Amino acid sequence: MAYLRNTWYVAAWSHEIGEGLFSRTILGESVVFFRNTEGKVIAARNLCPHRFAPLDRGRLIEGTLECAYHGLRYNAQGKCVFNPDGDGRVPAGTRLTIFPVVERWKAAWIWMGDPSKADAALIPDYPFLDTPEWHPVRGLLKVRANYRYVIDNLLDIAHVRMVHPTSIYCEMLSKGKTEITREPNGAIWATRLGVNGAPPPLFAVMWRAAGLGELSEHMDHWADARWDAPSLILNHVGITMHGQPREAGLEAKNTHFITPETGTTTHYFWTNCRAFARDDVNLDAAILSGTEQLFVHEDEVMLNAVQEAMGDREFWSMKPALLQADVGPVAARRALDKLIADEQREASAATKASITEVVSP
Amino acid sequence: MAYLRNTWYVAAWSHEIGEGLFSRTILGESVVFFRNTEGKVIAARNLCPHRFAPLDRGRLIEGTLECAYHGLRYNAQGKCVFNPDGDGRVPAGTRLTIFPVVERWKAAWIWMGDPSKADAALIPDYPFLDTPEWHPVRGLLKVRANYRYVIDNLLDIAHVRMVHPTSIYCEMLSKGKTEITREPNGAIWATRLGVNGAPPPLFAVMWRAAGLGELSEHMDHWADARWDAPSLILNHVGITMHGQPREAGLEAKNTHFITPETGTTTHYFWTNCRAFARDDVNLDAAILSGTEQLFVHEDEVMLNAVQEAMGDREFWSMKPALLQADVGPVAARRALDKLIADEQREASAATKASITEVVSP
Amino acid sequence: MAYLRNTWYVAAWSHEIGEGLFSRTILGESVVFFRNTEGKVIAARNLCPHRFAPLDRGRLIEGTLECAYHGLRYNAQGKCVFNPDGDGRVPAGTRLTIFPVVERWKAAWIWMGDPSKADAALIPDYPFLDTPEWHPVRGLLKVRANYRYVIDNLLDIAHVRMVHPTSIYCEMLSKGKTEITREPNGAIWATRLGVNGAPPPLFAVMWRAAGLGELSEHMDHWADARWDAPSLILNHVGITMHGQPREAGLEAKNTHFITPETGTTTHYFWTNCRAFARDDVNLDAAILSGTEQLFVHEDEVMLNAVQEAMGDREFWSMKPALLQADVGPVAARRALDKLIADEQREASAATKASITEVVSP
Repeated sequence: MAYLRNTWYVAAWSHEIGEGLFSRTILGESVVFFRNTEGKVIAARNLCPHRFAPLDRGRLIEGTLECAYHGLRYNAQGKCVFNPDGDGRVPAGTRLTIFPVVERWKAAWIWMGDPSKADAALIPDYPFLDTPEWHPVRGLLKVRANYRYVIDNLLDIAHVRMVHPTSIYCEMLSKGKTEITREPNGAIWATRLGVNGAPPPLFAVMWRAAGLGELSEHMDHWADARWDAPSLILNHVGITMHGQPREAGLEAKNTHFITPETGTTTHYFWTNCRAFARDDVNLDAAILSGTEQLFVHEDEVMLNAVQEAMGDREFWSMKPALLQADVGPVAARRALDKLIADEQREASAATKASITEVVSP
Repeated sequence: MAYLRNTWYVAAWSHEIGEGLFSRTILGESVVFFRNTEGKVIAARNLCPHRFAPLDRGRLIEGTLECAYHGLRYNAQGKCVFNPDGDGRVPAGTRLTIFPVVERWKAAWIWMGDPSKADAALIPDYPFLDTPEWHPVRGLLKVRANYRYVIDNLLDIAHVRMVHPTSIYCEMLSKGKTEITREPNGAIWATRLGVNGAPPPLFAVMWRAAGLGELSEHMDHWADARWDAPSLILNHVGITMHGQPREAGLEAKNTHFITPETGTTTHYFWTNCRAFARDDVNLDAAILSGTEQLFVHEDEVMLNAVQEAMGDREFWSMKPALLQADVGPVAARRALDKLIADEQREASAATKASITEVVSP
Repeated sequence: MAYLRNTWYVAAWSHEIGEGLFSRTILGESVVFFRNTEGKVIAARNLCPHRFAPLDRGRLIEGTLECAYHGLRYNAQGKCVFNPDGDGRVPAGTRLTIFPVVERWKAAWIWMGDPSKADAALIPDYPFLDTPEWHPVRGLLKVRANYRYVIDNLLDIAHVRMVHPTSIYCEMLSKGKTEITREPNGAIWATRLGVNGAPPPLFAVMWRAAGLGELSEHMDHWADARWDAPSLILNHVGITMHGQPREAGLEAKNTHFITPETGTTTHYFWTNCRAFARDDVNLDAAILSGTEQLFVHEDEVMLNAVQEAMGDREFWSMKPALLQADVGPVAARRALDKLIADEQREASAATKASITEVVSP
């Protein structure tokens, strides 16, 4: 399972990393998280470089991470700063692997590739996740499927009819055509517009909560998804009266941050953000339970069924029959395939170059 | 795990495939079964060719199979005939893999190899399974062992002494010698005759149910097994008064249709057929519970123990010490080994020929 | 997983092998044990050479081992001496694999390599395990970790501070330096001495049981470990008044016989032996429960955590950062690595030689 490594993945919501140690498997590797004395999030390989005990069994002592097996302590740079045994010496090169972490948009983002390339500016902008003008409802779910099936599903509007018939399915949208546009930075938009129809049930709830008055059977509905590499999806989903500008209606901004746990399991960090009815705790509860219901009992069950049916078989090797609605998922799959292939080619070239350097006189 | 593919396996008893969808793993592949509007059994790969959802999560609509993920519908030939999304178009080549199925002898037989070679005439004759003159009791059991251990066990008379001492073991039969004969079509008979002794307990029950009068300590007992490739076994087992013709006694015709589920699990379709006491429901119940008791608590436990002990090790690589009674299982093993090797050689030759064709000017 | 094969492993405590059959997996292979009519322990591959049923499902009949599948019987030399079926003949070469076993020090030692090299004199001396002058408490525990992590842990004094802080940790010992000495036969001693401090809690209990009077805060404490290939550890652990000879104090001799079950699980045969208070059953109970508590809830949990964290990764490939206290485990690891490499080189050379012999004119 090749992952894109020189990129940012969401490792945790900020509120998950508190006073103690916290561990999570990301790209198949166990990572331990803690906050140093300044409150900065530190991410380390969850494996003591001495004799390979998992460090999440240890504890924090004055901002250092103490291993439960032999009591070695590591600082936030991964340096071993204390050995309680014998004369207390530690070999000079003893290093705990530290992964770059940036806290942004109320999440901790981790870089599992070459640390020298970790540039916080590469994290896309989601300003509505960290501003008083917007109110997000957040969650984290586990998916028993490879992360790429999860991305596919989120960029795929056509599954809504069958999988979510009573919650977010909208007849007018299903008649639309998915359009693809690309941004200079590689982001891909898959957009679809439904015109002059009844809005889906979940939007009826939001429309009333926003105090926008009576609904109509003559509205327009859009569902736009932006994919940023490797697995970040932003949705703009909204309704307005038929023929009116989007600004006159109501729009939710939803994010889906997808982080591979292993080859067959995925962390799914989701938000549903609104600029209306921000203090409506009943609406919060309805969105939280509605989203979890929808995802756990509808999407996740299907994604897991696909994973079980596919097993280890590679997606393209199975020659999928692709429909018009697959233009979004396919564009993102191909873009990510290329990024991974490029990264592996570079890594392989770098290895060869370093061998040549060693061999040359 | 190489299986013989250009051959018929029993996929299900006919009564198992009713109005809905039904799925079963055969040769390691999940297959979905349904009846079309004419009642004909259709078998399809349980994997939508669009985005690989298992089709048994879907439903039947007017004789077509609807996928639960995106609502595509497939007809009995595997053609995608409906896409509910957008403009409804489907790529011309979209095909669901359909496996040839023939319903015969009250069972659905599946062909998992080259469909052009699927000839219903290759299914052996078991007329007593579908005639009013004979009454079969049927069952289906799961075995936690490779199918070849199950075939071995059924052709192996010597295990009866130890594994079934109180039900079907018969002292006179254990003194016999297993004889092998071969039919022109490749079928192999392993036969054994016991003379002038007491019959086994299960036959005593049948003898009385058949109203044949008093039993004797001076009877003859035969147990003949025919193996047809790849894994079909027919037993003729009976008793008669010592020195009398078989027709003067009582014979059961039993079939054992063995279908690999995976490399370590097997579907075992069994029947016990009689031409006497056909309406005796108590005898039916005795045969059903007796057979399941015998197989589940005696054979299956042993077969699973052998499977666990052997793991992935190949039978011949372990250099088995073979006895006279193994002549039947060994003849069938070698015949099946040869059929599989021939089929793989042909497949490999066909691949080379098609490459040459492409490369040649 | 390469194991040293031409060597002795403890297979069982003598008392475990009674009148019936007994099986245990050793070096990944299931072995069945029984006593012949003279009471000698016999160890055989737990797999009938006929059709591969596990023999521990069978029974002993007049000192022979009867297979439960077809009733073949094997004597203590592995010869098949009885076939109940047909004319009773058995192919001349039918052999059950028998492993050399020696019963010594109240344990059954097994040799899983070339039987011609099995020399009982290679078993190290542990006379205190079989003499009235010493009283051993014995146990057997299962460890969910590769056996080499178990050896490491036993030779590693530094982990005691963190893993056993309330039972056997001793401040003065943690200040000591681990010294390595080697015996001509390859055995390695890792020794450490703590001087002029308070003894650890477990020794305080023993000191009182031995009737040695008041303890002092000014004592010396030694913990010496001898490793014999491949996985046998002997501890001499004791206390004496500061500056006094060891003989004036109290010493326990503890053995740790480590036998690989599979690549990730280990049999741990332990003893704690004393020459004082030999009849003190309360002390026995305290040692038994104390050792099991210590090992199961402290060491085993940590060893399993290391195993889970390491998975299949090879120890040296992970470039461990080694401390002064690792000098013992590392010396034993390197010595065992070399023995395994030498054995594999020899086996490979022997294979080549036999090929040459066959090919040469």
